[in-house]
Amino acid sequence: MKPEVANRLRLNEDLTLALLERFIRDEVDKSGFQRVVFGLSGGIDSALVAYLAVRALGRDRTHAVLMPYETSSPASLTDAFAVVHDLQMPHTVVPITAPVDAYFAQVDALLGSPATPLRKGNRMARERMCTLFDFSAHLAALVLGTSNKTELLLGYGTQFGDMASALNPIGDLYKCQVRQLSNAVGVPRSILEKAPSADLWENQTDEQELGFTYDDADEVLYYLVDERYSLDETVALGYSEALVSRVIQRVRRNQYKRKPPVIAKISPRTVGIDFRYLRDWGN
Amino acid sequence: MKPEVANRLRLNEDLTLALLERFIRDEVDKSGFQRVVFGLSGGIDSALVAYLAVRALGRDRTHAVLMPYETSSPASLTDAFAVVHDLQMPHTVVPITAPVDAYFAQVDALLGSPATPLRKGNRMARERMCTLFDFSAHLAALVLGTSNKTELLLGYGTQFGDMASALNPIGDLYKCQVRQLSNAVGVPRSILEKAPSADLWENQTDEQELGFTYDDADEVLYYLVDERYSLDETVALGYSEALVSRVIQRVRRNQYKRKPPVIAKISPRTVGIDFRYLRDWGN
Repeated sequence: MKPEVANRLRLNEDLTLALLERFIRDEVDKSGFQRVVFGLSGGIDSALVAYLAVRALGRDRTHAVLMPYETSSPASLTDAFAVVHDLQMPHTVVPITAPVDAYFAQVDALLGSPATPLRKGNRMARERMCTLFDFSAHLAALVLGTSNKTELLLGYGTQFGDMASALNPIGDLYKCQVRQLSNAVGVPRSILEKAPSADLWENQTDEQELGFTYDDADEVLYYLVDERYSLDETVALGYSEALVSRVIQRVRRNQYKRKPPVIAKISPRTVGIDFRYLRDWGN
Repeated sequence: MKPEVANRLRLNEDLTLALLERFIRDEVDKSGFQRVVFGLSGGIDSALVAYLAVRALGRDRTHAVLMPYETSSPASLTDAFAVVHDLQMPHTVVPITAPVDAYFAQVDALLGSPATPLRKGNRMARERMCTLFDFSAHLAALVLGTSNKTELLLGYGTQFGDMASALNPIGDLYKCQVRQLSNAVGVPRSILEKAPSADLWENQTDEQELGFTYDDADEVLYYLVDERYSLDETVALGYSEALVSRVIQRVRRNQYKRKPPVIAKISPRTVGIDFRYLRDWGN
């Protein structure tokens, strides 16, 4: 990462942690819920969320759900347990193999062909969402999201799967900022050092699948989104046109994942179009 | 329904149908997808969506998925088949019993207590969403939503379940307007005449669960939302204060279901807060 950008993306750790902890506390209090629940994958993003949640609410008001699939890397589960043990926090292991396999056993037969790895991966991400929201109801707990800003902008995630949550404390942190804060709060070394992976199939790594590194993505996204640079202006800084266009394309193409469903407008005030805020409702 | 309101909510059928069909065609064309897919429950909302889709795209570019659970009313499946046969449209039956039961067999044991009907109902709604989005990937088909405006405003639906879709042609139609158009396009009589039900447990009816009728909800919502009346102004029209407050409360309390996840703001431009539209991106 260019020192210039690294510098601009470098967070004041104390300030940012205080702000994120307060965000969690305030939103949980406002909602009337008692606690928070989240998926703990063994990756760095959900690990940071776990540390933030425990710092914000105390361990007794948090709950981690570990949801391995049969083919998930055993190292992922070990790393998730390292977090749970370090934080001494309440947790449940809910393997997702049985419901996911029950689904595909039926549908593969109906469709006459086995599902692609992408379809299986998306189903797994959505199964985890279903599980978290069921725990949300059972525990009176808000679901914390664990998608960072880089993933959200690139649309590198499953809509109504890992991108779904009630509250996302890390959704405005670029991947490099997730790393910085994870270091600061003491996320276990093995998690900090491994290659980021959605772990939806064997040997998957995010950077291989994306075709560029997270550092490159963070830099380019920072200029495009936060500094409102154009493609040409960003390329003029020294980034390859291929990289910048690829990033722009992903942000554009996946815009739909960040928006509520599109509704056909008929009436004076339409949900999601001009009835979005309850400004007139004393809220 | 008061004649005054009935009059105001009465749609020009030809115009509205033309507009909704064009909406479906335009959005599908823009998206690059080939067709649409949707859940067909046997209820009036998804029946109307089926007729609209076939009118808009022709039957070959539509696909209905029928997703009964073990305890779903057999009449629901019969009614869904009536639509499929009337429209002669492609369809698949995917019972959701196996994956849902596989999930609860595990989780009930882990939690040491059987799930409530509400938790089971929400899981079923989310299972159907998972199935539809998997079919979406398999068929290169956009998922059509089947929630009407009354349900969306009251939050009478499952977040990331039946409220999730890519495109919702009926989301700006009140329940009475869904009824009017369903009549116009020829939805089978048995569907038009039965009591609305989410069919998540036996003998469930929407109006019993809501504690007021859809007609009452439509009238009150029309004044509150479309005409921007206050509580007092709406009560002055002759609606009971109990009804109006109950409706307002539901709209407020379920506002979260209509919004993307809340993200903690840190940076100049945050997903879902000030990075919502791609205005600057040549879109």
